[in-house]
Amino acid sequence: MTNLLKQRIEEANEKVLKILQEAELIWVGDKKAIDVVPNLKSNIIMHAGPPIEYERMAGAMKKAVLGAVVFEGFTDDLAEAEELVKNGTIILKPCHDFYTVGGMTGVTSPSMYVHVVRNERFGNEAYCMPHEGGSFKGLGWGTNDEETINKVRWMQEELSPVLDEAVKKTGGLNVKQIVAQAMQMGDECHSRCTAGTQIMTKMLAPYMTELDYDKAVIKRVFEFLDANNIFFLHVIMAAARAMIDPAKNIPYSTVVTTFARNGVEFGIKVSALGDKWFTAPSPKIKTVFFSPKWNDDVATPDMGDSAITETVGLGGQITVCSPAQEYFLGGNYESALRNTLEAYEISVGENSAWAIPNLDFRGGPAGVDIRKVVQKGIRPTIHTATAHVEGGFIGGGEAKVPMKCFEDAMMEFAQQCDIK
Amino acid sequence: MTNLLKQRIEEANEKVLKILQEAELIWVGDKKAIDVVPNLKSNIIMHAGPPIEYERMAGAMKKAVLGAVVFEGFTDDLAEAEELVKNGTIILKPCHDFYTVGGMTGVTSPSMYVHVVRNERFGNEAYCMPHEGGSFKGLGWGTNDEETINKVRWMQEELSPVLDEAVKKTGGLNVKQIVAQAMQMGDECHSRCTAGTQIMTKMLAPYMTELDYDKAVIKRVFEFLDANNIFFLHVIMAAARAMIDPAKNIPYSTVVTTFARNGVEFGIKVSALGDKWFTAPSPKIKTVFFSPKWNDDVATPDMGDSAITETVGLGGQITVCSPAQEYFLGGNYESALRNTLEAYEISVGENSAWAIPNLDFRGGPAGVDIRKVVQKGIRPTIHTATAHVEGGFIGGGEAKVPMKCFEDAMMEFAQQCDIK
Repeated sequence: MTNLLKQRIEEANEKVLKILQEAELIWVGDKKAIDVVPNLKSNIIMHAGPPIEYERMAGAMKKAVLGAVVFEGFTDDLAEAEELVKNGTIILKPCHDFYTVGGMTGVTSPSMYVHVVRNERFGNEAYCMPHEGGSFKGLGWGTNDEETINKVRWMQEELSPVLDEAVKKTGGLNVKQIVAQAMQMGDECHSRCTAGTQIMTKMLAPYMTELDYDKAVIKRVFEFLDANNIFFLHVIMAAARAMIDPAKNIPYSTVVTTFARNGVEFGIKVSALGDKWFTAPSPKIKTVFFSPKWNDDVATPDMGDSAITETVGLGGQITVCSPAQEYFLGGNYESALRNTLEAYEISVGENSAWAIPNLDFRGGPAGVDIRKVVQKGIRPTIHTATAHVEGGFIGGGEAKVPMKCFEDAMMEFAQQCDIK
Repeated sequence: MTNLLKQRIEEANEKVLKILQEAELIWVGDKKAIDVVPNLKSNIIMHAGPPIEYERMAGAMKKAVLGAVVFEGFTDDLAEAEELVKNGTIILKPCHDFYTVGGMTGVTSPSMYVHVVRNERFGNEAYCMPHEGGSFKGLGWGTNDEETINKVRWMQEELSPVLDEAVKKTGGLNVKQIVAQAMQMGDECHSRCTAGTQIMTKMLAPYMTELDYDKAVIKRVFEFLDANNIFFLHVIMAAARAMIDPAKNIPYSTVVTTFARNGVEFGIKVSALGDKWFTAPSPKIKTVFFSPKWNDDVATPDMGDSAITETVGLGGQITVCSPAQEYFLGGNYESALRNTLEAYEISVGENSAWAIPNLDFRGGPAGVDIRKVVQKGIRPTIHTATAHVEGGFIGGGEAKVPMKCFEDAMMEFAQQCDIK
């Protein structure tokens, strides 16, 4: 590699680092996807991860897609829904094609509300469907029975409208600041968002109280938030997407701009390489199952767009922020610390806005550099949840990004830069 | 010391440890002190720390006492209030004489609401006035102007009645569990109660919403809780008092049952030695001041009953739970860790219910043993706030319990046990 090229890469990556550091991420409200997501059409259903045709999808994702077709009112019959997908009436597209991210199956349909997070520094927006909660069932987990659909309906009818009005009354919640606080309170801001959800709740509470809704409605929203410690994750995901998008297409930058999985393939994107996916088979998740009746045989491989959090330096990149999460995963303080120190080794810099208390407020690792991953052989850690192959939330765990994604991206980068 | 005596002490301290471990601490509601505090009379005003006559009180405490006399309606004139105190119309007593604890000046008068926390395992109750918030003014900080008194009035009129009804609707909040969660979220549960306050808020929110109050009232209560991250401290203080009280008067036990300061003297009590105070001059606080206009010259020495938290193994005993607090105090992760490891050295055991994530969920230190303090020369760390000598909240800091308290208690213990 010539010195000139090396210099260009370093400068490009510095630019990306600055973009990450300067982000101003404001949750401005919740809106119906069709009303705010650019280019979305009423017959498009979005899913997590890189593109994948229906036939090849994981079982859980298939079921979620069919549930969404029913939710949208195209039919009330799941078999007929499958027909509509197969005959092309319904079109399936990655969330990532629409400035959107989705948890687990990531299935998001046009009538669903999405969190809208705006990057005020760069003027772009990103979107993510609200989290359905930590129960077994959910479109995100790949169930699609009546109970699942009814919960999604309730979210559109009560949860999101209330949140939208309350968020607007606050003038917008500063997600970057809430993440900073949550990192001081035991959240790694992916699998553990307990503090973030609480901070959000107490900030919204005074405004929710004065809304023109029945007390019973407001009570149900508070109860839902109280019962779902992970709720804020999907706000963070939209924020992470809004944070990284301005860092795309920076010539010569070797920084990862997307980690995403569809349950069959793991895909990454790299700044200089634009929207091209570099994929590998989705890795098996090292799962802690919630019941002995579940095991690896019934676990969907790594799935979901939530790894957008690791893309911006959260989750598995800052395990030392959350010894409780690490302990749940079977690790300890030492392994949490080691993971985070490894994350620094493959990052282009640090983000002082997201400081790590256990490391004397050192800025968190920022910007995964594919060169460093390949050179050092250190694969980023992804925190994740595990879905049953037939749908359902059955555990939490961690996975490593497949090295092949980085190797292929390096090859492409080398070719484009004409590196011999 | 004979082996038999040593054995008796060990057994007694094991008994105390068990009492601490088995505590079940439920916040059952807020009530007017006069209605629930045993033996309280309408002309008694309670204060923090060991007993002290008005003339010898710290300036901040004097002002709070006079403010409380005005609040109680004995007079609306502060000079006349002082006359009523001096001529014995108003009687001053330590909170600790009434199963009560009070923050900073600790001034609590009969008409004020107090948090009521019940130790369900042992059937006893303890009390603490709600925290007035982190602003400069407050009776707790020793101001007594109209703004101060008006805030105290608002707390009686809106805050406490709302909290009382909401807490009752929950069936009682489990303070022991909330502390356990908060310790996983960066709280040391004395100077930092950010997580505890949030957990409390989100648990109460659904119930507050449905109360029969104007929305504007509920909104003001939510705003107060949102603005005052330390609010839950006074619930924890009442809980700590309820936790330690059953451990008093255990023959042969050398465990501390009270740390408390009145701004002039630091006092401790020891289980086997009953209600006898062992005092020394209140130490200077190593303070981080909120403004360069303040310094040690205008700082009241260590003051308040909040050190009841250190008595039960929280606050300065578990600094490693809260690197953010340690950092604020000028320390780092290493000093936070060292403080906590020292706390284990002077404790009789561990409390697995209050586990420390950064130590791989080792139970927190429990039960300060005066023998170990004296033998090892390790003085417990107390986290604390700093009041201006003329009243007002001017900083946060830490102090060490004076060794003389432990030495005097050891002497008394030795005499009672006839140790030569």
